[in-house]
Amino acid sequence: MDTRSKSDSAPTIYDVARRAGVSIASVSRVLNDRDNPRPVTRDKVMKAIAELGFVPDGAARALSSRLKHVVGVVFRRVYGTDDGGTFADETESLLFGDQINRGIEIAAGRRGFDLLVCSVNIDERTLPNRILTIAGKCDGLILHDQVLSTAGLETIARTTPVVTLAGQPGMDVANVRSESADSMRELARHLVEDHGYRRLAYIAGHADSPDNVVRGRSFTEQAQSLGAEVLTGPAWQGDYSAAGGVEIVRGLISLGASLPRAIACANDQTALGVIYALAEHGFDVPGDVAVTGFDDLPFARHLRPQLTTVRQPIQEIGARAFEVLHSMITADASSPAGPPAEIVLPTRIVRRESCGCPAEPTTPRLWRPIG
Amino acid sequence: MDTRSKSDSAPTIYDVARRAGVSIASVSRVLNDRDNPRPVTRDKVMKAIAELGFVPDGAARALSSRLKHVVGVVFRRVYGTDDGGTFADETESLLFGDQINRGIEIAAGRRGFDLLVCSVNIDERTLPNRILTIAGKCDGLILHDQVLSTAGLETIARTTPVVTLAGQPGMDVANVRSESADSMRELARHLVEDHGYRRLAYIAGHADSPDNVVRGRSFTEQAQSLGAEVLTGPAWQGDYSAAGGVEIVRGLISLGASLPRAIACANDQTALGVIYALAEHGFDVPGDVAVTGFDDLPFARHLRPQLTTVRQPIQEIGARAFEVLHSMITADASSPAGPPAEIVLPTRIVRRESCGCPAEPTTPRLWRPIG
Repeated sequence: MDTRSKSDSAPTIYDVARRAGVSIASVSRVLNDRDNPRPVTRDKVMKAIAELGFVPDGAARALSSRLKHVVGVVFRRVYGTDDGGTFADETESLLFGDQINRGIEIAAGRRGFDLLVCSVNIDERTLPNRILTIAGKCDGLILHDQVLSTAGLETIARTTPVVTLAGQPGMDVANVRSESADSMRELARHLVEDHGYRRLAYIAGHADSPDNVVRGRSFTEQAQSLGAEVLTGPAWQGDYSAAGGVEIVRGLISLGASLPRAIACANDQTALGVIYALAEHGFDVPGDVAVTGFDDLPFARHLRPQLTTVRQPIQEIGARAFEVLHSMITADASSPAGPPAEIVLPTRIVRRESCGCPAEPTTPRLWRPIG
Repeated sequence: MDTRSKSDSAPTIYDVARRAGVSIASVSRVLNDRDNPRPVTRDKVMKAIAELGFVPDGAARALSSRLKHVVGVVFRRVYGTDDGGTFADETESLLFGDQINRGIEIAAGRRGFDLLVCSVNIDERTLPNRILTIAGKCDGLILHDQVLSTAGLETIARTTPVVTLAGQPGMDVANVRSESADSMRELARHLVEDHGYRRLAYIAGHADSPDNVVRGRSFTEQAQSLGAEVLTGPAWQGDYSAAGGVEIVRGLISLGASLPRAIACANDQTALGVIYALAEHGFDVPGDVAVTGFDDLPFARHLRPQLTTVRQPIQEIGARAFEVLHSMITADASSPAGPPAEIVLPTRIVRRESCGCPAEPTTPRLWRPIG
């Protein structure tokens, strides 16, 4: 068998296999995205393909040529306020969303895809058209933040592969999220049983966020079932931002409200603002009020006090979303993708100082990188 | 004059003007990007255009239809190590680059542009082709991180508008960067004169980064001119990452080296790692060793100790890069863009605890949001 390329300028699958140091069957598996090739093999093959400028034949070529190799990533537009607030940076930096996008980007890069990053105004009447325009520039969409209604999602999913993040799975839409209920129940148990706090509150995130709803309900039910009081109501409605956390605490204090012994926040950004506002009014965290977050953003372990939180595998959420989307994009009659999945990634509590636990030792921890 | 639309489904410039509550001349200025319309006017007009689904006529339509309304943002691929290091999250989160991209995204959103986010392997032989492929999907490129050589830049700039970040301005390439020399001289003066430190070091960033070269040289020359000693050499070569900062400190301590009284780091991420590694070996910051950063990332003020650093307007760098690129994209014979600019944004020292200064009060500071 002639294993040389047909011409110097047209490398073949044989060249790819030789360059990658793998079998032709392996190259074929990678090209056709079948039989689950090992990541190391896939990386070798993708590298060889890139180095040789190889263009696959036949079905793979047809697939390749009809693809744009672009996935759209759509999220709510957040423009920081112009009021000189202390947390303007944090609000605009969207750490959580950026970390997810990093995970998408890393997974997409392995498959030769780039990201079209699009913010949208969810209040705009023309939003469905905007999303259709974005879809026209991409092979598929990953949607953060409940940017579309269920009906809107079903419409766009008829023509474009769609994956939502922390949304609700639909007929033709896959969803990737983290586990929230068990970890929030465990957090409530920890605060009530281990620390003995009897009066708690939960600062909510966006009301339309399924994650927020589950976190609040699980935390509240568990704390109440253990005999603790949980403060609720509009005074505790946040918006996942540090500035929102600051506002809630300032509002309560200015009204002369008696603060609860522990405040569980819907995410780390909110906790950052809550801790800041408590310190500004002379309250000690955790001595006077314990505070917890959700996410375990990289800054959480460096805060003063170190933040007790629920760690979710943020980059992995992005990476999995891309992989699911990619399998939907490359599905065809001979290799259907199967029904869209809901993928739920595990979380775990990380106990640090802000709940009242001792400081973590500064010796290196054997945390695995996520993704 | 009939100010009604020609048909219900085809809004005109008159509809846009009425909806935006501005003059037709203002709409025209915005559409043609001439005579520097006020941002508030531009926002009103862009909002009305989006709401009405208005498609401009004539020259504006021609311009609009040949545009993809996509700018490419290209940066070095960084995949976190798989070694379970404590700083894997920080290394992969690329906070600085994400903040810049946020600034680009906000500015681009105001003009109806999306971002094509592309990471590249700068060691790859096929990189110039990769960049050309990206350019084919965009109206112009913003390049982080010295991804192309000067020759490579000049080649791509012949066919595509290009703006570099923290690079060097070229014949057809605009560059946006922050001031580094004055602020690093002032930082050296502060450490030597105000705190009396006599033995210092600078932990470098990437050797091919013009910012890094200027920061190291300015700091070293100023400290030496004031009679202080500055340690140099390969032991102090970092890579802008927290993990790099950890490695340098661990290496020096394992060799039994005597540490300097103050360490200035090329950026905040490096300082984060340096502080972590010093704490892990029982050194007090700033009591035993003072540490400073550069950037003023959002986490810097929440660190333990709070980080003394040089604040650069990170999002503003991204926003300005987009605006310069947009003016290059929309330039034509009747409205040439003029020679590509170098835009240098101001920086300032932020004195916090890690240099030996007192803690910042926790009362709100009147920092302006950047961008």
